[in-house]
Amino acid sequence: MKMYREWLKIRTKGPLNFIDITEKVQEIVEKSKISNGMVFLNSMHNTAAIFVQENDPTIFEDMKEFFERILPLNRKYHHDYEGNLNATAHLKTNLIGCFLALPVEKNKLVLGTWQRIFFVEWFEPRERKVLITIVGD
Amino acid sequence: MKMYREWLKIRTKGPLNFIDITEKVQEIVEKSKISNGMVFLNSMHNTAAIFVQENDPTIFEDMKEFFERILPLNRKYHHDYEGNLNATAHLKTNLIGCFLALPVEKNKLVLGTWQRIFFVEWFEPRERKVLITIVGD
Amino acid sequence: MKMYREWLKIRTKGPLNFIDITEKVQEIVEKSKISNGMVFLNSMHNTAAIFVQENDPTIFEDMKEFFERILPLNRKYHHDYEGNLNATAHLKTNLIGCFLALPVEKNKLVLGTWQRIFFVEWFEPRERKVLITIVGD
Repeated sequence: MKMYREWLKIRTKGPLNFIDITEKVQEIVEKSKISNGMVFLNSMHNTAAIFVQENDPTIFEDMKEFFERILPLNRKYHHDYEGNLNATAHLKTNLIGCFLALPVEKNKLVLGTWQRIFFVEWFEPRERKVLITIVGD
Repeated sequence: MKMYREWLKIRTKGPLNFIDITEKVQEIVEKSKISNGMVFLNSMHNTAAIFVQENDPTIFEDMKEFFERILPLNRKYHHDYEGNLNATAHLKTNLIGCFLALPVEKNKLVLGTWQRIFFVEWFEPRERKVLITIVGD
Repeated sequence: MKMYREWLKIRTKGPLNFIDITEKVQEIVEKSKISNGMVFLNSMHNTAAIFVQENDPTIFEDMKEFFERILPLNRKYHHDYEGNLNATAHLKTNLIGCFLALPVEKNKLVLGTWQRIFFVEWFEPRERKVLITIVGD
């Protein structure tokens, strides 16, 4: 078994910018030359998340409205140093997650027909970093 | 270190069908002959989830009512091509998760006393697939 | 590739006790002598969670109020054998998670500038257990 590791840098455009990073992760899997194993994705941030979902903007519209209902911007938060967008971003990250473990077979990501890998910015336009680790043979 | 991989097929009965897959995962761990390592579970679906919980129907009743409160079926969703059950299923999956990484020791799953592995269908009766990967010695 | 495994015991003080376990996990990573790989954390409990977040009490105050809004203690739950704190604890665990997969490089945890590893008790003061597994070279 061997390991390959590479940083993926993501420039986000602002809050609720959903970015499909599947192709970029697949490129790194290919560079690893690892045929069969697992790929781990680790976001280095508390106000951005990483998850698997269909690439359909209507789902992200629903997620946006859902979070505005359960974590409305117009209420008082304790973590208010950087505003309510930041306060709610922290909580959204813990609900959606900041890491993934996905299978690799024949040097390709194994995903369901409608599954894609997304990085979502909850806060401001930022330069974000995800560490990609592939372990296998 | 070696790797063993097998597909687990799950026939679901409809929305909110919580299926205890612990024994099936344990059988695959045994077939792997891997004594110590990790087992990864990856669901290939955006409208079904996989998670660890006690096998107690009252918890699933509470989860059902909780999701009906925060993601009610009788409101307007943007992702409405396949109805509101489908729209809310997408969001529930991101809240609960579609993968697990669990320890294996002495060729057995290491779980807490009350922990079991569940697959939950949020949408329709379907043939679902989970890829099980065991890595270790 | 090799593997190192150790139990981390955590004595919690009661509900909403957020415990920063980053240093303890780092100590176990060092004992493993594994330079590059992944560390897996598995909580053995259904009423306590494990997650990555900034070490800032105001975020935990927000999380507490958020959960009291979406999972209020003063309503009827089906899983009522051990009270509503227990019933809601089960659901909070599935929303926040009970495992992590994090990268290790040069025998150190790779975390973002503001990322720390937290164990949170949702229920009673308890002796809790997290299995730490490090895999790598």
